[in-house]
Amino acid sequence: MSKAIEAHEKWRGKIETKVRADLHDPEVLAIAYTPGVAEPCLEIQRDVSRSFDLTRRWNTVAVVTDGTAVLGLGDIGPEAAMPVMEGKCALLKAFADVDAIPLCVNSKDPEEIAHTIALLQGSFGGVNLEDIAAPRCFEIEARLKGLCHIPIFHDDQHGTAVVTLAGLTGALRLVKKDASMARIVISGAGAAGCAIAELLFAAGYGDITLVNSKGIIHREGHYSSHRLNALAQKTNPRNTIGTLADAMAHADVFIGVSAPGIVTPEMVQSMANHAIVFACANPIPEIMPDAAKKAGARVVATGRSDFPNQINNVQAFPGIFRGALDARAKDITLEMNIAASYAIAALVADEELNENYIIPSALDMRVPAAVAKAVIAVATSAT
Amino acid sequence: MSKAIEAHEKWRGKIETKVRADLHDPEVLAIAYTPGVAEPCLEIQRDVSRSFDLTRRWNTVAVVTDGTAVLGLGDIGPEAAMPVMEGKCALLKAFADVDAIPLCVNSKDPEEIAHTIALLQGSFGGVNLEDIAAPRCFEIEARLKGLCHIPIFHDDQHGTAVVTLAGLTGALRLVKKDASMARIVISGAGAAGCAIAELLFAAGYGDITLVNSKGIIHREGHYSSHRLNALAQKTNPRNTIGTLADAMAHADVFIGVSAPGIVTPEMVQSMANHAIVFACANPIPEIMPDAAKKAGARVVATGRSDFPNQINNVQAFPGIFRGALDARAKDITLEMNIAASYAIAALVADEELNENYIIPSALDMRVPAAVAKAVIAVATSAT
Repeated sequence: MSKAIEAHEKWRGKIETKVRADLHDPEVLAIAYTPGVAEPCLEIQRDVSRSFDLTRRWNTVAVVTDGTAVLGLGDIGPEAAMPVMEGKCALLKAFADVDAIPLCVNSKDPEEIAHTIALLQGSFGGVNLEDIAAPRCFEIEARLKGLCHIPIFHDDQHGTAVVTLAGLTGALRLVKKDASMARIVISGAGAAGCAIAELLFAAGYGDITLVNSKGIIHREGHYSSHRLNALAQKTNPRNTIGTLADAMAHADVFIGVSAPGIVTPEMVQSMANHAIVFACANPIPEIMPDAAKKAGARVVATGRSDFPNQINNVQAFPGIFRGALDARAKDITLEMNIAASYAIAALVADEELNENYIIPSALDMRVPAAVAKAVIAVATSAT
Repeated sequence: MSKAIEAHEKWRGKIETKVRADLHDPEVLAIAYTPGVAEPCLEIQRDVSRSFDLTRRWNTVAVVTDGTAVLGLGDIGPEAAMPVMEGKCALLKAFADVDAIPLCVNSKDPEEIAHTIALLQGSFGGVNLEDIAAPRCFEIEARLKGLCHIPIFHDDQHGTAVVTLAGLTGALRLVKKDASMARIVISGAGAAGCAIAELLFAAGYGDITLVNSKGIIHREGHYSSHRLNALAQKTNPRNTIGTLADAMAHADVFIGVSAPGIVTPEMVQSMANHAIVFACANPIPEIMPDAAKKAGARVVATGRSDFPNQINNVQAFPGIFRGALDARAKDITLEMNIAASYAIAALVADEELNENYIIPSALDMRVPAAVAKAVIAVATSAT
């Protein structure tokens, strides 16, 4: 039996409930349950916002999936998605003291999924969407944002984008290139690729080219989502038509959220000097770090913990939810996400910054606190 | 500020998440989350029943309400119901180590509520329905039992019935009357009253009369639920028409799940010798214990912890779910409920049994274990 199966059989769940009131004491029981509990109920009935003071709502996030895009495994169904959702919930608690509830929805209809979660929104302070296939995830997120008064965050998009921007900020600082001038190629035009492009535009990047398995996204193309069609008009400033290899020639930055092994050493060689390669396909990157380095890349990052410069969402979502919950934000905005990225990047001091250290470690516990602080600052200044 | 509000503001939630894996250890993180977590996901995809071994599902119950019948407060809405649901979840953990998730649904449509929960059933091992107004609660329970492969339990009905039968078993043992001969009056023909009548019939009681605010339920009456119409044909063996006072004359047992103060001393005086009075309206009983005793009742029970013989659902639902989960039962049946009642009653030894001790205390920690054992025995023998 594999180590992971063995560990999961031993845990039989990576999270459990902890009770905060001593219910074995009859006096406490009479307050926490009947008859005393009637009073907080009535108080919330008078003023629903009191649900954030008198229940766990202030600290509670639902982690929601339909099980259609779990890790790189594809559509494995709601039950099979649970180990990932439990892991996510455990990370939210371990890294940012957020209480999270994993909910796997047995539906593939975006309207039904959004409606289901919206009916339950009074039980939570936020919703993290997870591992939902594109383009459905876009529609679910948009619908939920319309239906809910609590923050909605699709980690596969926005968490990935935040950590990518954090890493990119460090890498460009190291190679002394300017964000607005840097030529960026993003391989993968699904949920993560689109969100990265959008966040980079919002952060002042100007020259971004998206590439999917059929080639460079361009103005004359017709794409499966409204969102990608919109990006087709904004990206690819030289309106090139061609392959990934064509896009990568003279690029300053390659960001891969696509497929294993699709980048050759020749493609990296064709990039500009001081090339930055983020090969984040998991677990097998678009190109292995040693090959990319050998081909001339100055900075290489991956999604893996066994190489330097790990780009891992765990650097983003716990702190972002901590901040959004503490600020009682109604939404998680692009501005908050950018602030989160810069907060992560800022934890690497100038004198520490080097090819193998452009971003703090995934386990650096300074990260969630710094991210939360940055998110709160934006949320507070916006109101 | 009241003590209960103060306590709830201090708790800010009576439950929280506890993490069972040390995610700050990079090796554990790589197993509990990416990349290791892919293996348990794939294992569950191959065999969905493995979700009970590799995730917390084996021990997880959703506590679900629409907020329409919370305590005696009526329809106070989903957010305001949360303090009760959190209390319930905390009790499930504190008394039976069951992990529970409070979910308050913002809908009053039985079909929609049932559909919402059914879509999420892969995330749980059971569902406890709570504080949903009758007759909607009947429909939701019936629909969910049809839609789900996990046990569904409406505590306000079945938990109440189990503990009532437990108390009645002790009381009849004390006064040496036979269940099949005892003349029972149940005041209150809502969810609890109907469930008590049904459980008593299943347990061999024969002479049961239901009374609601309009009088005795009888064969010619037309009632709001299919269920009450069915009970109207089965109860009231002498087919009496009249008031609660008429029903109580010569009765051996009064069970009140109705309204404060509606039973007079004269009504108790009109009962048979060694009368048993369960005045369970909360927090103010149908008749106060001292008044009932003075009027001749031999045994009096209430729902309150400040009088002897407390009839409290906490004696039933934690152990019932513990048993159902451990047996991986697909349903919680009448037989399991009866076995649970007898297991509770059996904890009072013959030499301990007296007017003030017909049922163990609500905080007696022998109860959940005994109930779970009894439920498992029935579940196992049925398969």
